[in-house]
Amino acid sequence: MAKKNGFVKQITSRDDDFAKWYTDVCLKAELCDYSSVKGCMVVRPTGTALWEKIKEIIDTELKSTGHENVLMPMFIPESLLLKEAEHVEGFAPEVAWVTQGGNNELQERLAVRPTSEVLFCEHFKKIIHSHRDLPVLYNQWVSVVRWEKNTRPFLRTTEFFWQEGHTSHASYEEADTEARNILDLYVRVCQDVLAIPIVTGIKSESEKFAGADKTYTNETLMYDGKALQIATSHNLGDHFGKAFEIMYTDKEGKEQFVNTTSWGITTRSIGGMIMVHSDDRGLVLPPRVAPTQVMIVPIAQHKEGVLDKAFDLKAQLASDMTVKVDDSDKQPGWKFSEAEMKGYPIRLEIGPKDIEAGHVVAVRRDTLEKVTLPLDDNLNATLLELLDTIHVDMFNRAKERQQEKTRVAHTKEEFNELIAEGGFVLAPWAGDEAVEDMVKEETGATTRCWSFEHQNDDLTGVKDLWTGEDAKYMMHWARAY
Amino acid sequence: MAKKNGFVKQITSRDDDFAKWYTDVCLKAELCDYSSVKGCMVVRPTGTALWEKIKEIIDTELKSTGHENVLMPMFIPESLLLKEAEHVEGFAPEVAWVTQGGNNELQERLAVRPTSEVLFCEHFKKIIHSHRDLPVLYNQWVSVVRWEKNTRPFLRTTEFFWQEGHTSHASYEEADTEARNILDLYVRVCQDVLAIPIVTGIKSESEKFAGADKTYTNETLMYDGKALQIATSHNLGDHFGKAFEIMYTDKEGKEQFVNTTSWGITTRSIGGMIMVHSDDRGLVLPPRVAPTQVMIVPIAQHKEGVLDKAFDLKAQLASDMTVKVDDSDKQPGWKFSEAEMKGYPIRLEIGPKDIEAGHVVAVRRDTLEKVTLPLDDNLNATLLELLDTIHVDMFNRAKERQQEKTRVAHTKEEFNELIAEGGFVLAPWAGDEAVEDMVKEETGATTRCWSFEHQNDDLTGVKDLWTGEDAKYMMHWARAY
Repeated sequence: MAKKNGFVKQITSRDDDFAKWYTDVCLKAELCDYSSVKGCMVVRPTGTALWEKIKEIIDTELKSTGHENVLMPMFIPESLLLKEAEHVEGFAPEVAWVTQGGNNELQERLAVRPTSEVLFCEHFKKIIHSHRDLPVLYNQWVSVVRWEKNTRPFLRTTEFFWQEGHTSHASYEEADTEARNILDLYVRVCQDVLAIPIVTGIKSESEKFAGADKTYTNETLMYDGKALQIATSHNLGDHFGKAFEIMYTDKEGKEQFVNTTSWGITTRSIGGMIMVHSDDRGLVLPPRVAPTQVMIVPIAQHKEGVLDKAFDLKAQLASDMTVKVDDSDKQPGWKFSEAEMKGYPIRLEIGPKDIEAGHVVAVRRDTLEKVTLPLDDNLNATLLELLDTIHVDMFNRAKERQQEKTRVAHTKEEFNELIAEGGFVLAPWAGDEAVEDMVKEETGATTRCWSFEHQNDDLTGVKDLWTGEDAKYMMHWARAY
Repeated sequence: MAKKNGFVKQITSRDDDFAKWYTDVCLKAELCDYSSVKGCMVVRPTGTALWEKIKEIIDTELKSTGHENVLMPMFIPESLLLKEAEHVEGFAPEVAWVTQGGNNELQERLAVRPTSEVLFCEHFKKIIHSHRDLPVLYNQWVSVVRWEKNTRPFLRTTEFFWQEGHTSHASYEEADTEARNILDLYVRVCQDVLAIPIVTGIKSESEKFAGADKTYTNETLMYDGKALQIATSHNLGDHFGKAFEIMYTDKEGKEQFVNTTSWGITTRSIGGMIMVHSDDRGLVLPPRVAPTQVMIVPIAQHKEGVLDKAFDLKAQLASDMTVKVDDSDKQPGWKFSEAEMKGYPIRLEIGPKDIEAGHVVAVRRDTLEKVTLPLDDNLNATLLELLDTIHVDMFNRAKERQQEKTRVAHTKEEFNELIAEGGFVLAPWAGDEAVEDMVKEETGATTRCWSFEHQNDDLTGVKDLWTGEDAKYMMHWARAY
């Protein structure tokens, strides 16, 4: 371990090797561990607590807007998966297949669900008959499996955890409103909880979900300038309604196909959170999702009264925030390093001198700034405010970086240069998929979205950088995870 | 639909065909539905809400006693499953195997977890080194798969939902205390939440968990007199510690194997709850687990003020209990039947005459008793008390029935007669597994447990009913689900 900038370096620097740094943070902050199953991870207590927090926030919002949770089987018979043509084409190459049950070969192999549209649609067909049965707003919290070649903890794993929402509506417009509302919910979770700034928009035809009519997406930039699709919401139109013959009698007594949506946010959001905020000392947790918001580190804890005072302080704070005391028998310096590695938003240092002086030292994890605070009744309010400030500052720093790394390309050459430097590149495009293929081949970049912010841009006289045709879209392009 | 006892019969009578009645209740009360995957069910919103309630209660208790949630992979490589000999022998015949990933044949097939001891043990080996690392108290909420031939909603499904706890301890005694504490937690959940009376004890050698040193079990009787094992907790001793070489350095610097436990409660508990309490009108939900505790049914809701009053009432009650208004355009009679089918603990009927008289009619689902209550500020307290009374009464009725159906056999012939009649049969046994095999063959009954209540029985001079040897155990025997 090398000393650098006065602290013991336990992990690779993020500027030296971003990929290695990321894995180091995941493992050393004890968010996850490798398992003996290729591409699958063990999500350790802190990683699980992060996911449970995200889940709790989303679940509460979904229930308050009339959504209900259900639990579908984890298996899909092959014949059922084959029912929607585009959908199966998109997913078949990455399906894990169960072919044996007990000691017997199965007559029909079963897909371990890569996503559950077909299961929900099969059920919708059974329960939807009249306009009175609509809308049906369902969601489930499960894991799904996609056979990935290159995996990375949280960001891309063979098995991953998510919620998948599936809804049925009387009209295309209603389905579209639902998809957009859910996209907004995901924006709020990313920005207001994970402190991740979001570019929100619509996917190109080639990048949309297999079987969707429209895919709405939330995109963001990682510290290294690569983009991440953090959550998507799909208006599936009547594609699945027709494929599964899900019909209802409308108010005029006419038979109609339902319009459906699906949408999901995954454990990938935890990977995004790490890649946006963390640093060379380890994890930096946004306060609103941190399972432990304040870690109290006693100094000279063998001295009389120190541990008692630390636990008194914990008791005082516990009603307003999540707080722990590190009373292990390690040296304070090690505890500081560990608190930094684990990313607690605030570390409180308290020793005999602090107790005598009637104060405590608060250290922000995000900036490492220290502030001395009186040990009085106001401390709770001060720390709550500090937690809020930390959230806002983390969001603003990430937002500033994202803005700096979002640049407009005026020529194909400039586009290639900017893509090579990293970040989002805004470039006009006429919508030709062949251009997307070529750009991907040449630069590794893909269209990330046609952002809502740029959908009203006046593109009069603006040309597609590649074909010279009239541009239709001011697209966000980037290399992405 | 036949009328009987003044109500429209929508389902099979439980005395005519218990199995058919059970399935009818599950489907008509909309707890679950069939899926196109053999043996797997769709858990519908009410079924899922029941499971979420059970989960919330257990999760809170587990966290308050220092347990942490984690998430292990859903797959187990075959070689890993083979590590503990008894364990694999117990589970191999019912494993679903993934043999293909994407378009490729896998080099090693993967079991879809039937249970996760081996995954936890592999991880324990990596994170446990010193006595300071112990105990490790982990739990996960997931689904598992066991390839069952005969399935039945909730009670026995190919995929089922559960929590599985896995802990590591320094000593056998500590592991035993953990297993017993968890068993007590399950007793509280069954009795205090699901209103199911429990016989708690230890499994015989042949009935214990594959790989366990001791299996503790909670057993109960269904309405039809068959027993159900509702939750188990295993002291695995050092079997897995040795098989996986999970070692720690004790305080004296000596290397020791850890002792582990595992324990689980499943969606089967919902099946048990149905089979204990429900009746020919449908589901009867114990108040403490009911997702909706009170259903308000407006009478003559087209008349001015009725619906407003119903929603006012809902608003008044909502802070103290979960409450809904059935404002659908069906006739009150149909709404009553539906409320009975869905099992809401209390139905409140409110119409113009009630409003004029300033009262509301409360109908208990369990007894169908009606009581007229003043529409005033005391109503919340009165209904809360009524909910509590319903819980206690439901528990007591089930307990009485269980006691009536628990009888002592003094001879082999009497044993066979009592088993044929159903219920628990207490019979002395010397512990010979051959006797268990023979009894099962002859009567279909198995040893359910050696209950704690009977472990101090004085068996001096008491003989095994089958071998005439000195009896060692006063066992609970029964035919079981």
